[in-house]
Amino acid sequence: MMVPAYKPEFEQILHRFIKDYFASSGASGVIIGLSGGLDSTVILKLCVDSIGPDKIKGLLLPEKSTPASNMDEIRDYATTLNVATKDIEITEIVQLINRDHPTDSSTILGNLKARTRMQLLFHYAGMENRLVMGTSNKSELLTGYYTKYGDGAADISPIGDLYKTQVRELARKIGVPAHFIDKTPSGDLWDGQSDEDELGISYEVLDRILLGIEMGLDDNSIIRRTRETENTILHVRALVKRSVHKRRLGLIPKIGLRTVGLDWREY
Amino acid sequence: MMVPAYKPEFEQILHRFIKDYFASSGASGVIIGLSGGLDSTVILKLCVDSIGPDKIKGLLLPEKSTPASNMDEIRDYATTLNVATKDIEITEIVQLINRDHPTDSSTILGNLKARTRMQLLFHYAGMENRLVMGTSNKSELLTGYYTKYGDGAADISPIGDLYKTQVRELARKIGVPAHFIDKTPSGDLWDGQSDEDELGISYEVLDRILLGIEMGLDDNSIIRRTRETENTILHVRALVKRSVHKRRLGLIPKIGLRTVGLDWREY
Repeated sequence: MMVPAYKPEFEQILHRFIKDYFASSGASGVIIGLSGGLDSTVILKLCVDSIGPDKIKGLLLPEKSTPASNMDEIRDYATTLNVATKDIEITEIVQLINRDHPTDSSTILGNLKARTRMQLLFHYAGMENRLVMGTSNKSELLTGYYTKYGDGAADISPIGDLYKTQVRELARKIGVPAHFIDKTPSGDLWDGQSDEDELGISYEVLDRILLGIEMGLDDNSIIRRTRETENTILHVRALVKRSVHKRRLGLIPKIGLRTVGLDWREY
Repeated sequence: MMVPAYKPEFEQILHRFIKDYFASSGASGVIIGLSGGLDSTVILKLCVDSIGPDKIKGLLLPEKSTPASNMDEIRDYATTLNVATKDIEITEIVQLINRDHPTDSSTILGNLKARTRMQLLFHYAGMENRLVMGTSNKSELLTGYYTKYGDGAADISPIGDLYKTQVRELARKIGVPAHFIDKTPSGDLWDGQSDEDELGISYEVLDRILLGIEMGLDDNSIIRRTRETENTILHVRALVKRSVHKRRLGLIPKIGLRTVGLDWREY
C-alpha cells in the first residue's frame, strides 16, 4: 500500500484554495511563521505562486538558542522569492512567563513557545489585516503532533490534507530547494528534537498506516498491506485516538436544535 | 417567538457532560479562568456541582487596571464554594509584547489580552494535568463575539449550546448569586466595554433572532415572529456570516479520502 502519489491537480487545488479564500476574506495579505522547516517553506512557495510575493509577510520567530544558520537559510530563500520578512525573538516573552510559573517539562515549555509564536502571528495579522497561514500537515493533525492553539492555530491550513510524505513530493514538484526537503523534521522546540524519534516511527511507515486507517481497514488488512507489525499499527491507532480532542473545537454538549461544531448549518 | 425556556434536563445534561468527559480524559482536575462575569461563574458552579470543589482551580487573570472589587467578588464566591484560586496579573506580559509591537487598536490589544489569558490557562493546565474549561455561550459563538484562539480556546465548552438569556436562567436555577446575574455583560478588555453596545443589540433580541436562524426561517418569518425590523435581522445574519471562520478549525482544502475538520471519522 502506497500513499497516493503526487498529482498535478494537488498543486492546482492548493493554488485555487489559497487564492479564492484570500480574495473572499477581505484581508490585505497573509502572514506565515517561517521556521526553516519544510512545511512552512512549502506554504511560502505556494503563497508566492498563488497570490504573489507582495501580499506575503514572513515572520521569523527564533529563540536566543536557535542556530542563526537555520534562520539565515529561510530568510535567504524568502528574499530570493521577493518576500519581506521580519525577525522577532520570542525568548523574552517565554522567559517572563516561565520565571513566574516555572516548569522543567520540555513539552510544557515547548507548548509555551508555540503559543507565543501564535500570539505574535495573530497580533501582526490583526495590525496589518492579514490571514494567518497554518503549516500543519495531515500526519501531524492525525497524530496530534502539534500544540493545541499553538502551531495548530491558523486561519487556513492549505496542506492539512496532505501527509508529510506527500508534502515532500509536492515540495520537489513546486521547486522548493532540496536542502529544505532533506532536513530532519523537527518542531525545534528543544535541542535535538526530532519528529520521528518522538513519534516513535518514520513518516514513511506512519503515513502508510494512517492511510489504512483513513480507508477504514481493520488491523489485519493494514498488516497485510503494509507488512508492518501489529504493535506498530496499534501504536499509530493510539496516537490518533489520543489526539481526537485536538482536532475539534472545545467540545460542546448537544442541547439546542443545532449546535456549533456539530450540526450548526453555516451559510 | 421565545428562546426555549429552562428545563431541569439542561442541568442534568451539563452535569453528566462535565463528569463523563472529565472522567474519561484522565485529567487530575479542571481549570477555569474566572473573570467575575456570569458565564465563568456559571461554569464554576456547574463544575462544583458535578465533580466537586477539590478538583477545580480558579485562575483570576486581571490587568493592573481591573477594579479590585471585580476580582474580590468572584474570589469570595469561589472561597464560599471551597474552590482554590490563584491570581496572576497579565499586565507585564501584555506590555512586553505591546512595547515591541505597539498598536492603538483596543480590539487588537483586547485580543492580545485574551490570548495571554489562554496561554496562562493552558500553561497551568499542562503543569497540573487539568482540563481548560471554556466559558463561551451560544450567542457569543454565533456572533463571533470572542477572540479566536483566545477566550474561545478551551478543552470543553459546557454552555456553548445555551444562548446568553438561557445561561441567565440556568444561573438562577443553580443558585448563582444574583449580583453575578444582574451584571452588565462585558468582555472587560477595555474600560467601559459592553457586549450589548458592541454587538449593537440586546441579548434578548439577539437570542430570539438567532433562534429563528437556527430554525432555518426566512427573514419574513423571523420578522413576523420577533416583531423586529428587517435591518435588525440582517444585522444579526451579518454577524453570523462574518464569524464563520471562528467556528471551525483552520480551514483545510479537500484532497484526500477523508479530511480533518470535514469528514475524518473519529473513533
